[in-house]
Amino acid sequence: MQKNQHGGDIYTNKYRIDFSANINPLGMPESVRTAACQGVALSANYPDVQYRELRRAIAGKEKVSEEDIICGNGAAELIFLLASAVKPVRTLLTAPGFAEYEQALTAAGCQAEFYELREETGFALQEDYLKRLKEGWDMVFLCNPNNPTGVTIPPGFLREILNICKEENIKVVLDLCFLDFLEEREEADFVRDTSDYPNLFVLKAFTKTYAMAGLRLGYGICTDKFLLEKMESITQPWNISIPAQMAGVAALKEKEYVERARKLVTGQRIWLSGQLKELGLTVYDSRANFLFWKGPAGLTEKCREQGILLRDCGNYRGLKDVQEQKGYYRVAVRTPEENKELVNVLKGVLKWQK
Amino acid sequence: MQKNQHGGDIYTNKYRIDFSANINPLGMPESVRTAACQGVALSANYPDVQYRELRRAIAGKEKVSEEDIICGNGAAELIFLLASAVKPVRTLLTAPGFAEYEQALTAAGCQAEFYELREETGFALQEDYLKRLKEGWDMVFLCNPNNPTGVTIPPGFLREILNICKEENIKVVLDLCFLDFLEEREEADFVRDTSDYPNLFVLKAFTKTYAMAGLRLGYGICTDKFLLEKMESITQPWNISIPAQMAGVAALKEKEYVERARKLVTGQRIWLSGQLKELGLTVYDSRANFLFWKGPAGLTEKCREQGILLRDCGNYRGLKDVQEQKGYYRVAVRTPEENKELVNVLKGVLKWQK
Repeated sequence: MQKNQHGGDIYTNKYRIDFSANINPLGMPESVRTAACQGVALSANYPDVQYRELRRAIAGKEKVSEEDIICGNGAAELIFLLASAVKPVRTLLTAPGFAEYEQALTAAGCQAEFYELREETGFALQEDYLKRLKEGWDMVFLCNPNNPTGVTIPPGFLREILNICKEENIKVVLDLCFLDFLEEREEADFVRDTSDYPNLFVLKAFTKTYAMAGLRLGYGICTDKFLLEKMESITQPWNISIPAQMAGVAALKEKEYVERARKLVTGQRIWLSGQLKELGLTVYDSRANFLFWKGPAGLTEKCREQGILLRDCGNYRGLKDVQEQKGYYRVAVRTPEENKELVNVLKGVLKWQK
Repeated sequence: MQKNQHGGDIYTNKYRIDFSANINPLGMPESVRTAACQGVALSANYPDVQYRELRRAIAGKEKVSEEDIICGNGAAELIFLLASAVKPVRTLLTAPGFAEYEQALTAAGCQAEFYELREETGFALQEDYLKRLKEGWDMVFLCNPNNPTGVTIPPGFLREILNICKEENIKVVLDLCFLDFLEEREEADFVRDTSDYPNLFVLKAFTKTYAMAGLRLGYGICTDKFLLEKMESITQPWNISIPAQMAGVAALKEKEYVERARKLVTGQRIWLSGQLKELGLTVYDSRANFLFWKGPAGLTEKCREQGILLRDCGNYRGLKDVQEQKGYYRVAVRTPEENKELVNVLKGVLKWQK
């Protein structure tokens, strides 16, 4: 089943620590847990189809108009709705990139083409991407920081991209689901530009920042009313559960918690990156709450045997180093103790490997 | 916004009792609430994309194979997935009927045609429906008991329908979301026939039976693997939240509770129906946990002023009695105290009306 090939599958095998899902290592804030449980208690009722309170809270946080907001049963639902509402003839994705973009396009009967992010250039977007934008696209997807690499797009370069896309009439889906963990999050937060770029759809999620992946809540911001209405018309009215709506409202009040998580993650990312390099692994320049690296093939199974889940990136388009018999992996940055345990396990596994 | 025109919108106006949503009057079982809250506590993780435990529980309850089951973020999601997966050229719905069938078809770029359920025949399917089945349909939707009328299809007649549809190669979506409140639920439960009719897709929901509308969980049973795979391929992998998965497992253990609700609802439906008739209203023959009736126009607003929400059926296709200046209404059957209050309020309103 295709459904298996994601991070966060803690159900198939026993495990001790899950590094395969990029979730806030501080876990779900107590206030979010409480609000979601209060939501459960109210769930004999149908959800508010217009999720008014949540919408107000998001508008307040993002400083946008309430009518520019659409929520989804996780950001993943919005990706599927986008593909289905737009039905783009030509769409440009990056490879590697989040697999759901392509799957959503396929589901909508559309095909994707790919801009190859190359290892030689650290998997960063290069100048030639701008040229490719002029090849007659309907839609492009960009993820910043990118998943699975964690590599960011410089704000100035992203603005160039947006300008070209506006000129060329290309819809831009900018996935900022990992933005909150970024030190440079303010410059990278192009939500402020949605009013200048009606072709820009910014995607955000509660999933990672507030460790509430199991509750399912994501949102999009876009000033193109026609697109938002189309997206709403092709989904059921009650797609956001009451626990998710109430958890979302509570989450947006948790500013100090996010700050604390960001500091923890940043420090630990630098530490973990250094450790992985010392183990002889090739670590790329992630700025997100996860690290992307290359090492011997087969580490996923070896680590799994010891209760450690890695995200094997072998099924990402553009990531198969068959020649060198190497594997690509992604690990979430977690708590100091957990990260130490990862390093220990990897040490053992790599020794065994030699 | 189109999204407003459903029952259960308790968010737009203040209210005391909601008769507009057809929910179990006993409320959510304590075990379901507890399980959903335990699910919240585990929701830092992603949900199991294959919802294995829930699938096992449904298979056990329905006595079907686990692989014949598909779950949705509410039954409503499955309706949208069905329309989108099948993309039927010609679909036959009943009017009146649940509005989401038509909306889902429209969303999938398909058109619906309608078999008119007529007031003169108590809104029941008639023999001529069988003839219409031979007019070259790809898909038909039937709801038993029907929403909003509560009228049932006799099991023998439904079997005739299934046989013709099998011969004519018509997919049948049989929505049994209100089945659990039916006294004749065993004969009406065509889940047992899914193995004989690969063209049959049976839809069920947790929403009404277990009063968990806000958690969003429904399921479908069908032996057509190709259809189920297609439906799964066009939705995100994580569409069922952890609280919903765990609530569902807990709910299926609540047999005595459902029994108790059914007895309560059956007695109260008969009582309430009698009372409404005494008030001079025309009450149709519902066997479900709601009553459908006709009375003076404008009752919805009058009742709302007194904190009572009715489902105004004026926006149902096929339900506009313009000539007689009458209105169609649907009310959930609730607890004895609540039903008495409804009768009292209606009494006052109708007196005022004269």
